[in-house]
Amino acid sequence: MLEDFLAEKARAAAGRGHPPEVVQTVRDFLAAGGKRIRALLCVVGWHAAGRQGDATSAVRVAASLELFVAFALIHDDIMDDAASRRGRPAVHRVMRGRLGADERAERLGAGGALLVGNLALMWAQELLHTVRLDPGRQRRVHQVYDAMLEEVMYGQYQDVMGTGRGADDIGAALDIIRYKTASATIERPLQLGAAVTGADEDTMDVFTRLGLPLGEAFQLRDDLLDVFGSADGACAPGLSDLREGKRTVLLALGLQRADQVRRERLRYLVGRADLGEREAAEIRGILQETGAREQIERMIASRYEQVLRVLDAADLPLAADRALRGLAVTATQYTS
Amino acid sequence: MLEDFLAEKARAAAGRGHPPEVVQTVRDFLAAGGKRIRALLCVVGWHAAGRQGDATSAVRVAASLELFVAFALIHDDIMDDAASRRGRPAVHRVMRGRLGADERAERLGAGGALLVGNLALMWAQELLHTVRLDPGRQRRVHQVYDAMLEEVMYGQYQDVMGTGRGADDIGAALDIIRYKTASATIERPLQLGAAVTGADEDTMDVFTRLGLPLGEAFQLRDDLLDVFGSADGACAPGLSDLREGKRTVLLALGLQRADQVRRERLRYLVGRADLGEREAAEIRGILQETGAREQIERMIASRYEQVLRVLDAADLPLAADRALRGLAVTATQYTS
Repeated sequence: MLEDFLAEKARAAAGRGHPPEVVQTVRDFLAAGGKRIRALLCVVGWHAAGRQGDATSAVRVAASLELFVAFALIHDDIMDDAASRRGRPAVHRVMRGRLGADERAERLGAGGALLVGNLALMWAQELLHTVRLDPGRQRRVHQVYDAMLEEVMYGQYQDVMGTGRGADDIGAALDIIRYKTASATIERPLQLGAAVTGADEDTMDVFTRLGLPLGEAFQLRDDLLDVFGSADGACAPGLSDLREGKRTVLLALGLQRADQVRRERLRYLVGRADLGEREAAEIRGILQETGAREQIERMIASRYEQVLRVLDAADLPLAADRALRGLAVTATQYTS
Repeated sequence: MLEDFLAEKARAAAGRGHPPEVVQTVRDFLAAGGKRIRALLCVVGWHAAGRQGDATSAVRVAASLELFVAFALIHDDIMDDAASRRGRPAVHRVMRGRLGADERAERLGAGGALLVGNLALMWAQELLHTVRLDPGRQRRVHQVYDAMLEEVMYGQYQDVMGTGRGADDIGAALDIIRYKTASATIERPLQLGAAVTGADEDTMDVFTRLGLPLGEAFQLRDDLLDVFGSADGACAPGLSDLREGKRTVLLALGLQRADQVRRERLRYLVGRADLGEREAAEIRGILQETGAREQIERMIASRYEQVLRVLDAADLPLAADRALRGLAVTATQYTS
């Protein structure tokens, strides 16, 4: 589906003399992997809501979500000047490399990636408004999608423009999760699948109630993994969140619980682009000793319980129920 | 229409605790002026195609175009790191200023502006797919709009990723005009207005035949004005295109016609960020002496003639015909 759509875009670009590397960059990005969790949840939502109507439409909306993710991540990586994504150089780095020795390569490469990201978003929207649904369902799909786009952009905006301020604000850190992750990763993809089948408000509400605890648990686990790695060593502890000064709940808790000396160390160390392994070990020590790490584990566990309660009460079709329970385990308990 | 839409966005943001400055930034950008030429041409296209159907829809599509322009210019200014736009500081500069003394203010400010631009694009699309038209016309409107978005992005991409290479390539410079200006400024806005009324292919074709010569003339004049200013002094000669190393047809012609010594001076000077008034005067001298400037004037004149021939043959409704002839004069002959 997505492959066909992009193959057609490549043919059209060739016919009009547009540079072929734009479509190719998007294809490479998609082929490099990613969890495809949103596309999966879109199909789960479609199952959960009764699978009425065209499966092709659900798959088309899922494909649109994959392009949306490509857009969001390409832009994210520009904003963070991230070196790599999905095990390959980030798109703006690839573009920079293409410009060779030009002294403006950094700025122009970011510009090239920005435009590739924009095209991915435009194509995501094109996939969406060319879905053949009756007008009521189409309208509903657009409403949910538009809400998702806004939430992600606002979440990103608060993240970007708030970085460095109020790093001890747990509420602010949870807000960013709410809009950046819970909405766009869980709630809205499920609702999009449901909207394709013309689901009732009750089903949409179930997904809203699932989205927040599951999304929060997902992100809290991700933040722990980034700093501490996984117990089985499959995921190594890293430096990226610490160097970037990412406003995580983990950091906010650490700042709140630390004594003054350690709080000042955290503030001094977190966000330094040249942070080394030794400083990272010191930060990890503080997050451990203050009990911040353990508190995050408890927050994840309670959110997992909440997800199970919502699912118990919802009485979704068996296949969808199982898929969501499986995802809840994967997302929250990836430690062993 | 656009004011109501953004007022609703502001209310929704307040209700959800999103930062109010995002909508406000878009409103300020739109309020700062701009020629609104695309919105105007959309309404002219609607007139030209017979004004059947809902005027509200044509106005809604025109409003969408204004938001699209805001998106494109906000992103443009990030890519060029332009200081100002429409007589005010560029959006990424405003964002940078908000971040104060943070050492990452430059990068984060660009990120904030990127996200505001993205929201403007998303809102442009929302205005479009919430137009109430019969499915056939709606599909047509989307097709034209999607084509426009792609053309602009590809045009920008070639501009950004090609800057500094092949600056003497007149064909490449004309390609960039074709996709960046002729399509998005003239052809597609006219066609969008026509698509709202369900215009036939003949009318759509007239707008394609108008778009290229009028768009080229428009851009060639703009390039001349940027470097030489206007004869009446209303538009002062500037340094921005020269400092940026913009790949204009004017520069390509100058490079082709200059002898080796002058060609090397052009290559050495154009694109220097620290270019001063004295060097600019030297460049202007070369562009003048080689006849490049005069040749551009001839190209503009021949495109103006072509626009008139298309209009003579098209036999459009009087009001639309007059509007387009007036625009052709303004766009091409702004020298006195």
